[in-house]
Amino acid sequence: MRLLIVNSNTSAYVTAKVADAARAVASPGTEIAAMNGTFGAHVIGTRTELAVAEHATVDLLAQHAGEADAVVIAVSYDVALRAAREMLDVPVVGITEAALLTACMLGGQIGVVVFGARVLPIYQELVRSYGLQHRVAGWRVVESNAPYAAGDQSEADALAVAAANQLVAQDHAEVVVLTGAVMAGVPARLQPHIDVPVLDGVSCAVRQAELLTSMRPIKPRAGSYARLPPREMSGVSEALAAQFGR
Amino acid sequence: MRLLIVNSNTSAYVTAKVADAARAVASPGTEIAAMNGTFGAHVIGTRTELAVAEHATVDLLAQHAGEADAVVIAVSYDVALRAAREMLDVPVVGITEAALLTACMLGGQIGVVVFGARVLPIYQELVRSYGLQHRVAGWRVVESNAPYAAGDQSEADALAVAAANQLVAQDHAEVVVLTGAVMAGVPARLQPHIDVPVLDGVSCAVRQAELLTSMRPIKPRAGSYARLPPREMSGVSEALAAQFGR
Amino acid sequence: MRLLIVNSNTSAYVTAKVADAARAVASPGTEIAAMNGTFGAHVIGTRTELAVAEHATVDLLAQHAGEADAVVIAVSYDVALRAAREMLDVPVVGITEAALLTACMLGGQIGVVVFGARVLPIYQELVRSYGLQHRVAGWRVVESNAPYAAGDQSEADALAVAAANQLVAQDHAEVVVLTGAVMAGVPARLQPHIDVPVLDGVSCAVRQAELLTSMRPIKPRAGSYARLPPREMSGVSEALAAQFGR
Amino acid sequence: MRLLIVNSNTSAYVTAKVADAARAVASPGTEIAAMNGTFGAHVIGTRTELAVAEHATVDLLAQHAGEADAVVIAVSYDVALRAAREMLDVPVVGITEAALLTACMLGGQIGVVVFGARVLPIYQELVRSYGLQHRVAGWRVVESNAPYAAGDQSEADALAVAAANQLVAQDHAEVVVLTGAVMAGVPARLQPHIDVPVLDGVSCAVRQAELLTSMRPIKPRAGSYARLPPREMSGVSEALAAQFGR
Amino acid sequence: MRLLIVNSNTSAYVTAKVADAARAVASPGTEIAAMNGTFGAHVIGTRTELAVAEHATVDLLAQHAGEADAVVIAVSYDVALRAAREMLDVPVVGITEAALLTACMLGGQIGVVVFGARVLPIYQELVRSYGLQHRVAGWRVVESNAPYAAGDQSEADALAVAAANQLVAQDHAEVVVLTGAVMAGVPARLQPHIDVPVLDGVSCAVRQAELLTSMRPIKPRAGSYARLPPREMSGVSEALAAQFGR
Amino acid sequence: MRLLIVNSNTSAYVTAKVADAARAVASPGTEIAAMNGTFGAHVIGTRTELAVAEHATVDLLAQHAGEADAVVIAVSYDVALRAAREMLDVPVVGITEAALLTACMLGGQIGVVVFGARVLPIYQELVRSYGLQHRVAGWRVVESNAPYAAGDQSEADALAVAAANQLVAQDHAEVVVLTGAVMAGVPARLQPHIDVPVLDGVSCAVRQAELLTSMRPIKPRAGSYARLPPREMSGVSEALAAQFGR
Repeated sequence: MRLLIVNSNTSAYVTAKVADAARAVASPGTEIAAMNGTFGAHVIGTRTELAVAEHATVDLLAQHAGEADAVVIAVSYDVALRAAREMLDVPVVGITEAALLTACMLGGQIGVVVFGARVLPIYQELVRSYGLQHRVAGWRVVESNAPYAAGDQSEADALAVAAANQLVAQDHAEVVVLTGAVMAGVPARLQPHIDVPVLDGVSCAVRQAELLTSMRPIKPRAGSYARLPPREMSGVSEALAAQFGR
Repeated sequence: MRLLIVNSNTSAYVTAKVADAARAVASPGTEIAAMNGTFGAHVIGTRTELAVAEHATVDLLAQHAGEADAVVIAVSYDVALRAAREMLDVPVVGITEAALLTACMLGGQIGVVVFGARVLPIYQELVRSYGLQHRVAGWRVVESNAPYAAGDQSEADALAVAAANQLVAQDHAEVVVLTGAVMAGVPARLQPHIDVPVLDGVSCAVRQAELLTSMRPIKPRAGSYARLPPREMSGVSEALAAQFGR
Repeated sequence: MRLLIVNSNTSAYVTAKVADAARAVASPGTEIAAMNGTFGAHVIGTRTELAVAEHATVDLLAQHAGEADAVVIAVSYDVALRAAREMLDVPVVGITEAALLTACMLGGQIGVVVFGARVLPIYQELVRSYGLQHRVAGWRVVESNAPYAAGDQSEADALAVAAANQLVAQDHAEVVVLTGAVMAGVPARLQPHIDVPVLDGVSCAVRQAELLTSMRPIKPRAGSYARLPPREMSGVSEALAAQFGR
Repeated sequence: MRLLIVNSNTSAYVTAKVADAARAVASPGTEIAAMNGTFGAHVIGTRTELAVAEHATVDLLAQHAGEADAVVIAVSYDVALRAAREMLDVPVVGITEAALLTACMLGGQIGVVVFGARVLPIYQELVRSYGLQHRVAGWRVVESNAPYAAGDQSEADALAVAAANQLVAQDHAEVVVLTGAVMAGVPARLQPHIDVPVLDGVSCAVRQAELLTSMRPIKPRAGSYARLPPREMSGVSEALAAQFGR
Repeated sequence: MRLLIVNSNTSAYVTAKVADAARAVASPGTEIAAMNGTFGAHVIGTRTELAVAEHATVDLLAQHAGEADAVVIAVSYDVALRAAREMLDVPVVGITEAALLTACMLGGQIGVVVFGARVLPIYQELVRSYGLQHRVAGWRVVESNAPYAAGDQSEADALAVAAANQLVAQDHAEVVVLTGAVMAGVPARLQPHIDVPVLDGVSCAVRQAELLTSMRPIKPRAGSYARLPPREMSGVSEALAAQFGR
Repeated sequence: MRLLIVNSNTSAYVTAKVADAARAVASPGTEIAAMNGTFGAHVIGTRTELAVAEHATVDLLAQHAGEADAVVIAVSYDVALRAAREMLDVPVVGITEAALLTACMLGGQIGVVVFGARVLPIYQELVRSYGLQHRVAGWRVVESNAPYAAGDQSEADALAVAAANQLVAQDHAEVVVLTGAVMAGVPARLQPHIDVPVLDGVSCAVRQAELLTSMRPIKPRAGSYARLPPREMSGVSEALAAQFGR
């Protein structure tokens, strides 16, 4: 199958990291293409950048998802996830939703680690939008930009481990999710120091995308995810405009 | 005060209707400017159009909100509401949030009328995102496009009245909210036929925008609504890019 | 418009403070009358005093609300708020409900500062009764009676600022509400030391009362807020008895 | 033990009915005194009457509860329940809370029958105030005043049976609660026609009051139910004023 | 009445302690028989032991409940509570459910003390299964096995008192529940050191079982608690198999 | 990988059906073994049978899971799911939990079809135990035993299709889950007649078990899912006793 990973950020560094991590966990028959956003934030870290990324994401998908059998949205705010599910006929998975739902199957309450206090409320809104707030044991914030560039990660790692261990000891979390596309593949490195399973979004989302693809769910013919009807659109890319009334 | 009303739709008809209704309820000292989106949907009715409108809205605000004392987002999905609150230093009000919060002050459970079954789930997600789901007595869907153009509204009116009356009789709603920017000013026409107060979003939002302006709340210096820090953005309008790191 | 402010407490000091703060924020055309309770607690601080104040409030309104265009209940437990909405034909606003709903429009989770641990559970019950518990980031208690009398407020101010700052730093509150009628006007003094907007109930309620008055919502003709039917009442003031079956 | 039953209504008919039903279920050693309110509504049916009854109830208790080992509030809105628990050193039980909690021990979701659509929202607010809304399978309204006077009950009975059976068949209720003090003892008559257990508040409350009395819970020395501190009160009965600072 | 207490643990020590505490609080006419599980855990402390105990409990009840007028499940996980309610025609009470519901009638939020961090999530799941999570002020864990054997309890007592006092001071609990069958009767010893009422499950459950018995609720004829229909069962005790299709 | 499917029912018919459906969806490298319960119900349909099945399931797993890389609990009540996760070192998936979580990734509210009104409350309790109640759009009950035996399924199919279509039309479900192990593979047959994706538990669970296996989550070293410590057990199979303190 062809899996398209879209990182609506314009940061090639993060996208490359995500693509590597995705390939490391994908099934043999899965061919992975990873795309950056063509406009918008280098790395999304504010609500305003997220608003731009909503458009950038559906635009990117309109351009490139035509051949894909499934899509992973590799921005941890799961930007434009519901729009993408409506626009496309194939499964679309968000990395944070995938991590949370996968974590649920390990059985207990989930501890969530977020990078940066400024974005914590955005993640809390996201979790509530999934109706999963009752599965969260607690939240911890790590302040570090180190993961967004190559170089020594030992300090950021130590902070993330400490956050996870607090979630286990104080909030009784039974599984920990590290948010952020840039955390792709990181759990393997931290797991020895944390007593409950640690998950990242990309690793979960790639697998869930494969899973959904194998199920071949129909495109809804009713409701808010039914195929886009003809609509008047202007000022957007031809590819995006062409999605309506196909 | 100068109040900017943005309707991220490109439909001039709806915007004119909204502006008229807004002027009808605004205080004498309130000067109203109403703007259409410059790209995106004629009238938003799908999740994909909403994703585009997120960008269109913050772009529009970056271009035009500089002189405004307050902003009303006149799309009933309250598109980009949180982003706008972050980006701007002045109060921003969404029409559906304003209608729901105003309805709360009338004391009871709220009945909500939505135009089109396809968008019902989107409104339900919106209400949950405000943490107001426990204030909703019930929902009713009206299928009619009549309000989006001039002409006879009697059939659409009759459907809306019937929906509201069902919410009162069956779901024990004690106030009714008509969603949709295009419902601006309509409650006055329907109220005689409905036994509990009926509200539309625009009428509430204009007033709440005036109210918040008079309170002069500070721009947050912490949290997810603090002023935009310097960020790397590309491929967006100069005005939008200039919002970061002011 | 004529706005009646009722403080069911018998403390003239608090009522005067409330009235001053109310006049400071009211629109030019708003004429404010403030009334004390004629029986009951000097300052309500227990559940039993609240029970008495329920009666005192509706009695006070029956005596004095006849000419009013709107009413503000200036006791932070919003005592008899729903009864007043039923009894009167004009809008009635409670100061704590008004502060919370206004705070919602600033966008994020709300931190609440309460004066006295004994009353904390009462405020928590109040917030749940509004269905707004999911909007509260956290609670802090300040133990100080200083605000209830003239004199040096610097210690009480310092405690309130510390409580607010904890709510921002630890609980990620994005707006703070100071409960208590006696906090009317205080946010202006504390705001420079707190990084998110701080609101008091009276300032919000006066404005929301003006707003609702301008909307002229109908008196419900159905449900639990419909006009009082004829009922057999005894042992209450003539004015109160006369409210039934008007 | 001495059990005081207070019906803050002034209707002697309902109180007599309640007292009879209470004596029919009380343990041999329980001595029952039943008191009417001395001011306020004949039968509470509006929010305004409830506000008056808050005061009437604590006043009645201040006058008469001195010798009681426990108290039952026999108004189905559980009027002044929390205030009474604060004011008195002995257990206080509300009839609707008692019915709901007892119903919980029968294992499933609860169907609730309410007399009169006007008061339905008040009961729903009450259930939410107990945090028990998730235990309610559904609500049904019966419109009948017959239970409030002697005479043929067959029509009211038929309506209540139909409501209960709908709750079982449509809402999958596994136990039914009939609200209203006046329903005391009625379940025995209706039970043969309803396939799940039917409870009334008085029968549950009398027993729960006996149970709590046998447990001899301490009077809290902390929190919102601790003994009333000295407070300034005026314009209330001597007995009520004397409750503070005992 | 004959009250059967089943402790699905095989620990005779705990059962004897429970039986003693039960007799100490039972009414004069209540005859108490206490039974141990015949297979399974000595003391349940893991999810796997709980799974075995589900079977052990219904088996024990099938053998011995025939003559009982009511049953108390004296394992604090309320093991097989719903199954027992279905299988038997008489009331069945779980000790933790009984403690929580009884605590609700004391009016405020409940603090819960749990012995052992490993089982904390199980108790939290139990409370959620009762829909009572909104009544819990907070949780504290005590790590001590002392209560499970004779000998000095002073250290365990001190830990439990400290936990309860923290729940009052930090989490504003207004009543405290000590979980664990082995806590039967312990509150009397600790109460002098704790400022709000402290409850144990056994003391509450015995009384609630007597209460329900006096109410003689019908055996449901509909729903998930109706009498067991004929079913094909194999490999279980004759007594258990005989419960179906009686 | 070796996937063990346990159907704690003793019905070989259902197990064979499940095994066939599982093999039809499993990946090429997945070797499937399906086991029946050795004691308990032919087909679980009551709470009492479920209690027995808790034990039967952990016993079956203790006997046979030693070689498995993952386990699917193929009873739609997800019997003993949490215990199995604790007892085993490998992933364990319940069919109903898997269906619900998979359905979440299709984006909208879930409609649930249940076979038999008697068991509806049990499923509702299950969904609440997962914290997923806010994702359920509605429930429908089908009364038919036809799926539990070979033969004409057309009537049962028609009922299930009608239930699903009602969930879409009336409750705005955007995906439908058919509960029951016996529904394995059925969605393919019904999908043409239903406008939103239809899922069964077995098809989802087999895939999710493969997914979790590929992730190799660590066995928790803390919390309620950590490896079983040494415990005193008696009267259970040697294999089950041997699980403790490995």
